Amino acid sequence: MGEWKGLSREQLSALLDENKKTYDEIKSKGLRLDLSRGKPSPDVLDLSNGLLGALDSYYAEDGTDVRNYGVPTGLPECKRLFSELLGISPDSMIVGGNSSLSHMYNVFSTLYLFGPPGHEPWGRREKVKILCPCPGYDRHFGVSGDFGAEMIAVPMTENGPDMDAVEALVASDESVKGIWCVPLYSNPEGVVYSDDTVKRLASMRTAAPDFRIFWDNAYGVHHVFDEHKIADIMKLSAAAGNAERVYYFFSTSKVTFPGGGIGLFASGPENIKQMTAHITTKTIGYDKIIQLRTVKFFGDANGVRTHMRKIGDVLRPKFELTLSALERDFAGTGLVRCTPPKGGYFVSIDTLNGCAKRVVRLAEEAGTALTEAGATYPYKKDPNDSNIRIAPTYPSLEELRQTMELLSLCIKIASAEKLLAACE
Amino acid sequence: MGEWKGLSREQLSALLDENKKTYDEIKSKGLRLDLSRGKPSPDVLDLSNGLLGALDSYYAEDGTDVRNYGVPTGLPECKRLFSELLGISPDSMIVGGNSSLSHMYNVFSTLYLFGPPGHEPWGRREKVKILCPCPGYDRHFGVSGDFGAEMIAVPMTENGPDMDAVEALVASDESVKGIWCVPLYSNPEGVVYSDDTVKRLASMRTAAPDFRIFWDNAYGVHHVFDEHKIADIMKLSAAAGNAERVYYFFSTSKVTFPGGGIGLFASGPENIKQMTAHITTKTIGYDKIIQLRTVKFFGDANGVRTHMRKIGDVLRPKFELTLSALERDFAGTGLVRCTPPKGGYFVSIDTLNGCAKRVVRLAEEAGTALTEAGATYPYKKDPNDSNIRIAPTYPSLEELRQTMELLSLCIKIASAEKLLAACE
Repeated sequence: MGEWKGLSREQLSALLDENKKTYDEIKSKGLRLDLSRGKPSPDVLDLSNGLLGALDSYYAEDGTDVRNYGVPTGLPECKRLFSELLGISPDSMIVGGNSSLSHMYNVFSTLYLFGPPGHEPWGRREKVKILCPCPGYDRHFGVSGDFGAEMIAVPMTENGPDMDAVEALVASDESVKGIWCVPLYSNPEGVVYSDDTVKRLASMRTAAPDFRIFWDNAYGVHHVFDEHKIADIMKLSAAAGNAERVYYFFSTSKVTFPGGGIGLFASGPENIKQMTAHITTKTIGYDKIIQLRTVKFFGDANGVRTHMRKIGDVLRPKFELTLSALERDFAGTGLVRCTPPKGGYFVSIDTLNGCAKRVVRLAEEAGTALTEAGATYPYKKDPNDSNIRIAPTYPSLEELRQTMELLSLCIKIASAEKLLAACE
Repeated sequence: MGEWKGLSREQLSALLDENKKTYDEIKSKGLRLDLSRGKPSPDVLDLSNGLLGALDSYYAEDGTDVRNYGVPTGLPECKRLFSELLGISPDSMIVGGNSSLSHMYNVFSTLYLFGPPGHEPWGRREKVKILCPCPGYDRHFGVSGDFGAEMIAVPMTENGPDMDAVEALVASDESVKGIWCVPLYSNPEGVVYSDDTVKRLASMRTAAPDFRIFWDNAYGVHHVFDEHKIADIMKLSAAAGNAERVYYFFSTSKVTFPGGGIGLFASGPENIKQMTAHITTKTIGYDKIIQLRTVKFFGDANGVRTHMRKIGDVLRPKFELTLSALERDFAGTGLVRCTPPKGGYFVSIDTLNGCAKRVVRLAEEAGTALTEAGATYPYKKDPNDSNIRIAPTYPSLEELRQTMELLSLCIKIASAEKLLAACE
């Protein structure tokens, strides 16, 4: 059918009526589907049920009774597992709790209350600006927003954040204190940061001496298609004389259980010393039982990698179905731009400008929850109102097929309405 | 033998020599014992091993898959269990994480960064003062100290904090913003707050409109002898027009596992609304698997009460041994003051002034760790250098017998040294 932009008012009206009719039929079925959040599906969770069985021993390798108090920065064997998996030294790591998002929040809290080691508390400053590559992860924006940071959107490219823009901002403004990054399979576009991007982030000159990179490697071992790798930001930063620049976050939320995995973070020696002091004031120890369970379940890093391949096998058909539905319904129409993700948990699409909110509302009225339009931008404000994050991981293939059918109709309706309005 | 204070120099020297000889004999055995922290013993932990078995279902009563994301303030059935146990409304409760200490820290963090609802952040004030009934819990002082609060020691009585002193301080000074309380079986003296004390705390006039009580009911169901009850501070505060005055903390650290239990807190509607907003920014949900396990393990509040009686049965002989050793070795000597605790986890003693540090060092040199002298006071400064916290819960009865024997010798040595020095 070709580009919709070239269609006449009559053709657009006909398309609107036709798609609305099908939409109303689907709506009348009263579906209840959810593509809003990046959650693992029950069959993926089932792959980790071995974690929930009886423990054959309550003792860590150094004799620690994991049921009792102590070991606030994580069991040595658990640190070793993650060290092997992620290539991070166990000494630079704090392992505990079930949420890397909580560690991000706690790091922000420490920076605001006490300041980076050797620097004034960010909370005492008139202004703190945080760079937010966009589209990005809404919960990152939630954290920096909670502390009152000014969030500055930076465009994403196929190699990561637009580094020319990033370098210009950090070099010129001392109040630019940090940047959010999801370096491997970025949320939501599934972009892999190039080696050059990582190097520039690690070594760029910043006006703020206490500039920080919040490196959320949430999908660090979550391959769906090819197995991509990113450059080692910890080593590159240290080599560039910026050993304290990076806070590196990871969790097993999407490896084992989001409601009962392990969160961790790593950083430079001064940052880890500071965080350890506050953490040992705050807790007598995280849950070590889940740490021991996780080590026993996986054995070693290769155990995790094998497990992630099984998860990839479940996710791949869901991504393929999503992408092929978009291709089938929109190729040549000019209504949807989508670069297929290289992995991760999401498919990001852009509609015609000014259509995203309408699409999400139409889907919602037909019983299907999508991520709120705008959520992928700071302050929930997508300047083009075009980005939609699709989370295909939770539904079954059949539910996903139905949802993509509905989503196509919603996009066509919103697009026809938009183009018709432009005819007037 | 009577009061040591009336003894001659020669008698004291003889006692010193005699006790030193026995001490050296014990020291040469190279014991490694630990009475420093309030930890449950392995046989108490074993009573909860049922928590670690296989789960027969992954679903909460409302169908929530506990393995997945969500439910940031706690599973309804878990809130119900604690509501029944503690007499607190489920709506005023946030359940999650394995540590009530972390909740205390997070509440302080919120008060310092964002302020109590409707009030300025405490972090923006020149000075914040926190009242610390003493002897008290070192980790409370650690939390308020971390935020730079000025900690003011208030004496404990057999009915709780000296309320005349508390009322005078809070009425006259707007910078007095809070007080730490362990109302049932206080740490370390095992005092039970009287109804009058609780009423006065709930209703007293405070110069600070945002005065807060940090109510750590750590031993709320931890009876060792008689089963004592305290008045309901939440109801009394609300009735006195101070609905937001109290943050109430509890955990199952000493019910099930310190390294894998559940922490919770409760407060007034505005405080809970504020904390919920920050918590939902910070996490997509605490570990719900342990919440479901805990509900399945206990069934209901009576299940917890029955379980706590079993723990009490293990602890009682340890307390009896500790108290009878003190009575046997010190009755009439005037060297040790000790009011037997009504329950909880500790025995608190006072030596002659200026002896506590010496006693702890002597014990340490003979291989026995005691809680650091001074730890029961803010800034680790016991003005009399007399208070020692004994934690009899972890060792076996035989280890405890040996430790108490050593402790007696250390106290006698330090006392003789002190009294001899006074003769000069």
